[in-house]
Amino acid sequence: MKSLSILFFTVLLLPGISLSDCLIRGTGDMGVIVERAAGSLKVVDTTHHNTLFQVEGLGDLSHASAVYSRDERYVYVFGRDGGLTKVDILCGRIVKRIIQGGNSIGGAISQDGSLIAVSNYKPGGVKIFSADDLSLIADIPATTVTDRDGNKKGSKTVGLVDAPDQRFVVSLYDSGESWIIDMSDPAKPAIQRFENIGSLPYDGLVTPNGRYYIAGLFGQDGLSLLDLWHPEKGTRLILDDYGRGQKKLPVYKMPHLEGWAMADDRAFLPAVGQHAVLVVDSKDWKEIKQIPVHGQPVFVMARPDGRQIWVNFAFPHNDTIQVIDTETLEIINTLKPGKGTLHMEFSPRGESVWISVRDKDEVQVYATRTQELTHRLPVDKPSGIFFTSRAHQTGL
Amino acid sequence: MKSLSILFFTVLLLPGISLSDCLIRGTGDMGVIVERAAGSLKVVDTTHHNTLFQVEGLGDLSHASAVYSRDERYVYVFGRDGGLTKVDILCGRIVKRIIQGGNSIGGAISQDGSLIAVSNYKPGGVKIFSADDLSLIADIPATTVTDRDGNKKGSKTVGLVDAPDQRFVVSLYDSGESWIIDMSDPAKPAIQRFENIGSLPYDGLVTPNGRYYIAGLFGQDGLSLLDLWHPEKGTRLILDDYGRGQKKLPVYKMPHLEGWAMADDRAFLPAVGQHAVLVVDSKDWKEIKQIPVHGQPVFVMARPDGRQIWVNFAFPHNDTIQVIDTETLEIINTLKPGKGTLHMEFSPRGESVWISVRDKDEVQVYATRTQELTHRLPVDKPSGIFFTSRAHQTGL
Repeated sequence: MKSLSILFFTVLLLPGISLSDCLIRGTGDMGVIVERAAGSLKVVDTTHHNTLFQVEGLGDLSHASAVYSRDERYVYVFGRDGGLTKVDILCGRIVKRIIQGGNSIGGAISQDGSLIAVSNYKPGGVKIFSADDLSLIADIPATTVTDRDGNKKGSKTVGLVDAPDQRFVVSLYDSGESWIIDMSDPAKPAIQRFENIGSLPYDGLVTPNGRYYIAGLFGQDGLSLLDLWHPEKGTRLILDDYGRGQKKLPVYKMPHLEGWAMADDRAFLPAVGQHAVLVVDSKDWKEIKQIPVHGQPVFVMARPDGRQIWVNFAFPHNDTIQVIDTETLEIINTLKPGKGTLHMEFSPRGESVWISVRDKDEVQVYATRTQELTHRLPVDKPSGIFFTSRAHQTGL
Repeated sequence: MKSLSILFFTVLLLPGISLSDCLIRGTGDMGVIVERAAGSLKVVDTTHHNTLFQVEGLGDLSHASAVYSRDERYVYVFGRDGGLTKVDILCGRIVKRIIQGGNSIGGAISQDGSLIAVSNYKPGGVKIFSADDLSLIADIPATTVTDRDGNKKGSKTVGLVDAPDQRFVVSLYDSGESWIIDMSDPAKPAIQRFENIGSLPYDGLVTPNGRYYIAGLFGQDGLSLLDLWHPEKGTRLILDDYGRGQKKLPVYKMPHLEGWAMADDRAFLPAVGQHAVLVVDSKDWKEIKQIPVHGQPVFVMARPDGRQIWVNFAFPHNDTIQVIDTETLEIINTLKPGKGTLHMEFSPRGESVWISVRDKDEVQVYATRTQELTHRLPVDKPSGIFFTSRAHQTGL
């Protein structure tokens, strides 16, 4: 007993080694779930469907997003309050936390894993940090615009994603631009600017192969498409009918572009302000079909093999999930996980899907083949779910 | 000093915990390299480009292949001698090794990570083991055939892959069949048999989305295609000209189907017995183009974003790599890594590629954007390279 006491006492004092709370285990089957109200994370094991750690003190996690280091050990969480927090999921603790801006709305990790980029509403612009110690590598101011009161300010930056060849792509809400930021030489960010991409881009995505960047537009119908293999061709407008049309929806009612799914040659996306999923041919961006669904879709997500699309909905229909067959384009199942069904994340090879059900304070796990509930985990007001397999994918 | 000595002494004695050789680290940036002649593995770190462990005692590793557990901690190595070895890459040691058959030529791991399947030449058939302890779960004998001497034997099994919904697919060389093995209920393997798929299937692949299973045929031209979304339609012959034609090539000169690349709607594959890469439309399986290359291609591999194809060649041209642009279909670079350039593996997001150069006893790392050599690692007669990100993909 005595030697064990000495052991544990000593181990706790050794820097970087703490057997009492760090795990020797693979990280390929791990993930985090955002507990929005508490400002904390649950670190989970997707093989055994259990919680490994709770990590507290992450600040305001409304609409928080997260990316993983290439070794799948660290998660970088982007908070609404401008916080950037690096969490060690093997030890269940915050490694470093900084407030990098006034109001952050998303981030990305570079292809090689060395750089973390964050887009900010205030003061606008993109900041790029070392993934290692969160030291500032580059501070890229946004285009200056004049607001209604005649004051100068930096444009809000939105829709920040990573792209192959060590690039980031971002859009500027107020100035109507998209930028490619090439960080091959971290000391000299090379910025390629595309102006007049459309009015008020509010969000962006990159296709899973990293080729196409698409920005959603709040100020007009349609979306802006940029072919990253051919930036010299500039942006072009696609899906001319996609948008608010004559309706005056507030910006928060516009679909998140992260809620798009790509399966084979087709994109599945939420129709704006309608109870429908749009099916679009991703070769020519023409609409193939509108699938009537239970409510206004929020996330339209493809099972990794592209066989099924799972859809959740905005309030007051947010107690429901519908499953669409990608071949017949018909709804094959309607599930009722409960009120506040906010987010979904598929296991890497798609055998299961984890669903946040806020008002039940739980995450539900379903087998995708049968669409049957297999496990429940208690989680305090769960929202975003992020599995480590994202580390290996572009744009996630 | 005294307390430290006690610490390390005690820690080494604790079951399951040995700080001296197990690592607390993420496994997303790890991999193994097969040292064929020595029957050993190098465990590598793809971020720092170095070796973490050497693991010995894996038997005959000629044409060895490997798959990863879903947590990316364990690698299962399938050896030519029928050996199945489970290696813990965090601790650099063999967890368990069994000789499961007389002559093994490949294996797969189930979608949920719980089952390891192995296909055997002798005695034929497929054995399925628990991924946990390698205990036998199912022993599925092959169709019995009569050999030239009139003796009964089990058909050789080849081209074993995993597929979505907890299935494996395999082909039977002597009896000309493909089988779908559904392991949803491990106690009752459900086998769907497809007969007369073509003469002497010698290898197989599943497309990255898990939908199509393709078997190469040694006894006739063409390949057999099975749509796993519609098994009721049976197999059909595609690429009628693909094969030996009038030439009588030995079976080992036939291209491995793992050497096919899929990028967008196109497949890139080695022409049989010719110095050419075939480009095929994967919608209708019609040939689009033949690209003349430096030698007989062995592996035709797509960078993960589909922007480039890297090709190596059979002896005597096996000192060369060529890089093809997937848009122009032209060769953009010819590299000379050295004699015995046998295998390639891309980093998960494609910024680099690792290349085994047997006769230099080294692995070379290239930046894919510039195609410049960035790192070298000493490895004893390297052959296959397998990164942990395979854990998250179907068919790898």
